[in-house]
Amino acid sequence: MSWGLDNLPYGVFSRRGEAPRVGVRYGDQVLDLAAALHDEVFAAPSLNPFMARGHTAWHDTRALIQEKLSTDRSVTDAHLIPLEQVRLHLPFEVADYVDFYCSLDHASNIGRIFRPDAEPLLPNWRHLPVGYHGRAGTVVVSGTPIRRPSGQLRAGVFGPSTKLDIEAELGFVVGVPSELGSPAGAFEEHVFGVTLVNDWSARDIQSFEYVPLGPFLGKSFATSISPWITPLEALPRIPGRPQEPEPLGHLRRQGDWGLDITVEVWLNGEIVSRPPYPSMYWTPDQMLAHLTSNGASLRTGDLFASGTISGPQREERGSLIELSWNGGDPIKLASGETRTFLEDGDTVTLRATAAGRSLGEVVGTVR
Amino acid sequence: MSWGLDNLPYGVFSRRGEAPRVGVRYGDQVLDLAAALHDEVFAAPSLNPFMARGHTAWHDTRALIQEKLSTDRSVTDAHLIPLEQVRLHLPFEVADYVDFYCSLDHASNIGRIFRPDAEPLLPNWRHLPVGYHGRAGTVVVSGTPIRRPSGQLRAGVFGPSTKLDIEAELGFVVGVPSELGSPAGAFEEHVFGVTLVNDWSARDIQSFEYVPLGPFLGKSFATSISPWITPLEALPRIPGRPQEPEPLGHLRRQGDWGLDITVEVWLNGEIVSRPPYPSMYWTPDQMLAHLTSNGASLRTGDLFASGTISGPQREERGSLIELSWNGGDPIKLASGETRTFLEDGDTVTLRATAAGRSLGEVVGTVR
Repeated sequence: MSWGLDNLPYGVFSRRGEAPRVGVRYGDQVLDLAAALHDEVFAAPSLNPFMARGHTAWHDTRALIQEKLSTDRSVTDAHLIPLEQVRLHLPFEVADYVDFYCSLDHASNIGRIFRPDAEPLLPNWRHLPVGYHGRAGTVVVSGTPIRRPSGQLRAGVFGPSTKLDIEAELGFVVGVPSELGSPAGAFEEHVFGVTLVNDWSARDIQSFEYVPLGPFLGKSFATSISPWITPLEALPRIPGRPQEPEPLGHLRRQGDWGLDITVEVWLNGEIVSRPPYPSMYWTPDQMLAHLTSNGASLRTGDLFASGTISGPQREERGSLIELSWNGGDPIKLASGETRTFLEDGDTVTLRATAAGRSLGEVVGTVR
Repeated sequence: MSWGLDNLPYGVFSRRGEAPRVGVRYGDQVLDLAAALHDEVFAAPSLNPFMARGHTAWHDTRALIQEKLSTDRSVTDAHLIPLEQVRLHLPFEVADYVDFYCSLDHASNIGRIFRPDAEPLLPNWRHLPVGYHGRAGTVVVSGTPIRRPSGQLRAGVFGPSTKLDIEAELGFVVGVPSELGSPAGAFEEHVFGVTLVNDWSARDIQSFEYVPLGPFLGKSFATSISPWITPLEALPRIPGRPQEPEPLGHLRRQGDWGLDITVEVWLNGEIVSRPPYPSMYWTPDQMLAHLTSNGASLRTGDLFASGTISGPQREERGSLIELSWNGGDPIKLASGETRTFLEDGDTVTLRATAAGRSLGEVVGTVR
């Protein structure tokens, strides 16, 4: 079952006229946690206070919910609310948002598109997980309409982007802060769970602006996430992809933090790609170690995303710029239409599953 | 007088055993605003709730404080606290932090240092204010010790930065949010005031990591700001520096938002530079217009900084990489010592004045 006892992702919901509060998804229902567990931490309009409690509380709460849902008839009867009666909100307050660039196939494809005569990977790529800060204030929940951004498409030309794209990613949500001046501790002590991310990108704005300080307005107009945060405990772990050269000591893997997750990219109701997360080169424990290796502190609500997930096959690419090879090789849809980049009215849906458990979906329609 | 009735910057202070709250600096004292004005908004531990009230409230409050300080003996006697009795805190909760690159002389110097045989300015530089997102969670208040960051200095080498640098900047603090999907309104409707910023930079970490997504760990370990936020009304405004080519319509200047401010860079008690803010190319109204031109929203507490302030003269450069020409031309100090980049134990102090009014200082000592 996609939303069974082995899944149980957390979100923030409200019924009409009521304040948003924390719930857990079970089947096609939401368990009202403040009511079911008599714990005020779940009456908050975001997951942050609960996430700040730490690893032991996360584990114990999950076990308690599993027990109540299995055995306690009064809980399931009184506090399970059908999904169609609730509205889902942004599940946590985003502190800092960092976006990485961890797919070998994605980085290689981008290199081949923009520098066809050179080595696809830049010299630093195999030595550290390249990343940058994005805009936390424009992280929005699934379903939020995406307005096509305007910007300088080239020198002297301002107008609506004609290369609006998606990036299918996983996002990791920090629960437990770390101190300024020291690297963070173990990955599973800090990171609460995983969400799906669509990092909308305006390729024309980005390509004029990004030298030398990186992407800015080409990304900052919107980043959509799933309303559900799946706890780490629910994820099937596998070894990470082999790395060459061996990473430096501070970037050595902490365990099997490869994740057996497959993403689906749907465009107007049709699957156009199935990016496989096991193909990622840098694992999330390495991202976290890198992020704090200079002494930068973590806060509850920090979000760091994997960067576009792309596998080696064409039908595994996680962005339109790769799928259409920068517009030169349009995607043919079953409807008979073709696409290079997004058109007004297009709806993109990302879905993901991990060993049969759903990670929810991220939907956005371009206006 | 540096801290007179025409200045009156806001900060957050506490006395021993008391909760932090909002005050205004007057001379060498802090006016306890919650007590003096009987307004609970100033009992908050940050300026954010007051800043969210908007332009009219900012103006009226300032006028009221000026009146009380001039005429109301009971206020000045009962609610002015000597600075030596208080601790100063980070004055606001930072939402998103953006760092721009608005000095023509700084950008040209960096271009000459790293690309001596090419055009110093990159093709986009005169068409838009180049910027990127920094780490909001590591913005710290003046006086916070700066721990020398470690990082990958080149492929396969991890260790403490040997090129630890400063950047002398002005920061602009947003009070009034804007809606997702539309450009922000007038600069003075959104921006509450100005602070001094030292954007500490590890040049070796930065130069290995920054391609193609921009600076990350070379900057994210710490950014120091002044404890005082000077309201826009207190700043002497002058026309911005001429621009060629004429900026596009959405980047046209909204008025005289050049600022007549001079910064001083002190190293271990000695002035090493006097960067002049009037030499900046892009003005802060243009930065704000650019930042939201793609529809990105603003939040109360957003901080955007000017980038390093450098004038055309050597003694006006706002970073050590410029002052020492990337280490090739060491700075000679009056003590007989020389410096290329910062050594352990060095103390850097930024100070600024605007028509005789102090903008406070930003101090940091390298550990």
